[in-house]
Amino acid sequence: MTSRIHLTLDEVRDLSMRALLANGADQENAAAVTHFIWSAERDSCHSHGLFRLPGYVASLRSGKVNGAARPSLSDLAPAAIRVDGDNGYTPRALDVSRQPLTERARATGVAALAITNTYHFSALWVEAAAIAELGLVAIAMTSAMPMVAPAGGTKALYGTNPLSFAWPRQGKPPMVFDMATAAMARGEIQVAAREGHTVRDGAGLDPEGRPTNDPNEILAGAQLAFGGTKGALLSLMVELMAGPMLGMPFSVEQAAGDNNDGGPAIGGEFMLAIDPVRLSGNPDVLGHAEKLFEAVLAQPGTRLPAARRYKVRPENERAGIEIPASLHETIMSLI
Amino acid sequence: MTSRIHLTLDEVRDLSMRALLANGADQENAAAVTHFIWSAERDSCHSHGLFRLPGYVASLRSGKVNGAARPSLSDLAPAAIRVDGDNGYTPRALDVSRQPLTERARATGVAALAITNTYHFSALWVEAAAIAELGLVAIAMTSAMPMVAPAGGTKALYGTNPLSFAWPRQGKPPMVFDMATAAMARGEIQVAAREGHTVRDGAGLDPEGRPTNDPNEILAGAQLAFGGTKGALLSLMVELMAGPMLGMPFSVEQAAGDNNDGGPAIGGEFMLAIDPVRLSGNPDVLGHAEKLFEAVLAQPGTRLPAARRYKVRPENERAGIEIPASLHETIMSLI
Repeated sequence: MTSRIHLTLDEVRDLSMRALLANGADQENAAAVTHFIWSAERDSCHSHGLFRLPGYVASLRSGKVNGAARPSLSDLAPAAIRVDGDNGYTPRALDVSRQPLTERARATGVAALAITNTYHFSALWVEAAAIAELGLVAIAMTSAMPMVAPAGGTKALYGTNPLSFAWPRQGKPPMVFDMATAAMARGEIQVAAREGHTVRDGAGLDPEGRPTNDPNEILAGAQLAFGGTKGALLSLMVELMAGPMLGMPFSVEQAAGDNNDGGPAIGGEFMLAIDPVRLSGNPDVLGHAEKLFEAVLAQPGTRLPAARRYKVRPENERAGIEIPASLHETIMSLI
Repeated sequence: MTSRIHLTLDEVRDLSMRALLANGADQENAAAVTHFIWSAERDSCHSHGLFRLPGYVASLRSGKVNGAARPSLSDLAPAAIRVDGDNGYTPRALDVSRQPLTERARATGVAALAITNTYHFSALWVEAAAIAELGLVAIAMTSAMPMVAPAGGTKALYGTNPLSFAWPRQGKPPMVFDMATAAMARGEIQVAAREGHTVRDGAGLDPEGRPTNDPNEILAGAQLAFGGTKGALLSLMVELMAGPMLGMPFSVEQAAGDNNDGGPAIGGEFMLAIDPVRLSGNPDVLGHAEKLFEAVLAQPGTRLPAARRYKVRPENERAGIEIPASLHETIMSLI
């Protein structure tokens, strides 16, 4: 039985800001990271919430991450921009990129964003949803540290390589998903290890390449992609799109250059924004998509992605959330 | 034991051209479709080869598909073009779109192509690979007819919704994959039904929503997405991107408007082309990606996607291929 600490969402924000500011982040960078942590806790995505804070702090303390990063925007092509993260955390780079990416996508129909030289440790859906809130379709991918075996292999090579997709809805929060192409998110396996649970079949291999349900063995060995070969191919796609495609290292190269402080390694994020009205020529393209959503929901047992998050959100906003007392203690020791 | 007929690849081409020309396709449209069928047979992708020809012919005979289509190009935005397929087959529309899409992607860094008003019955990888042969990264998606249950549901709602990704390689054919987001391609299930095999667990549900290994029951019921909920979410993404996003019907709407001649239904295809040199700022971006491929192949048991196709290709080009005698007989009856 794990003892739990209750926090309001304001207290979540405060805890995150204090820990980051106390360890060398400036106000803007701390606020950007905190927004991602706060958004995750608000939606009960604990594996991307305060649980990540000690990792952020470790990378500030080791001097790896620039807590006072000033990301800079540059043009790559009429429909492609780069935001160099100045060796800071990705959320700050995303703050800088949101307006130019959406303006560009509205002007050119589709636009790509290359985030470079950042440390990515946060959920992708937060920013994909933010782009969709502005009426654009968003796709995001990132890759960090070798953790997942390639198709047919047994050694960690790819990141967990999440892919996020967000579709705007009128008068409703976006339809958004954010899936590790790994069978399980790294954070979920870390939570299982911390809390002493086993993980489901197919999650990973031990250091000798044998299937195991022990999260500690998987953390030392290799995770597996979801859905067999197909998932592993998607992982390869993300590895290319969020690495070489951005002029950034792929996971194995990231690991070779990392100081192993337990925080994220340097890498990039690929985002695509598309204006669905321009691409479809249909002013009511969002209304058309609603008919598809209705057809999905007409089947018993279905729900749209993020529905569970949207359902818990008002209650978390009202009543607050809980985190393990051990995590709270760890965070307090960092302030 | 199925009796087999041997054909050279020239005979494959000839058979396809004769069947299409005899049933109302003009030279350009027949040649475009035949290139896709020929490419599939050359690489031993039988489910997208001559096996599809009776379906193509059925849709010409029923008057559904315009065998003399003249696809037309229009600008949607600086980085987005549309090719209206004039109610013909997708391969002819792709012929028209290849040059403007690649020129646009080189000029703007990334470019989107909306193929509309076409009948799609062919493998996606053929065109994705063709774009990658020109040095660009390609992503393609299409959706046709309700066949796959959504996450949590039991009724056919999505197409098999393939996603193809191609990455260029210097001096080598592209790294390309083309995966149904369904657990199995429709063609594979149809081949199993025709040849009297069962299919693997997880392929689909019978009309009452119960798991089954009988391909005929699945064809009457619903296929399942690969990899559980994650695969079903990818299928939803493809359904949106290749339907409403292009101003085209989604699968259920396609079915409502189709004449049920057994051929494909009207729909669209989404393609994205990205210039990896412009996005990365790295003139040797392809060399960088090769290091990732080397790291994959350094693990025993791995191979790159399409490697099996590239391996059989020279032998098929030299010695020809085989198709079931029953299929050959069917095709001959259409000429």
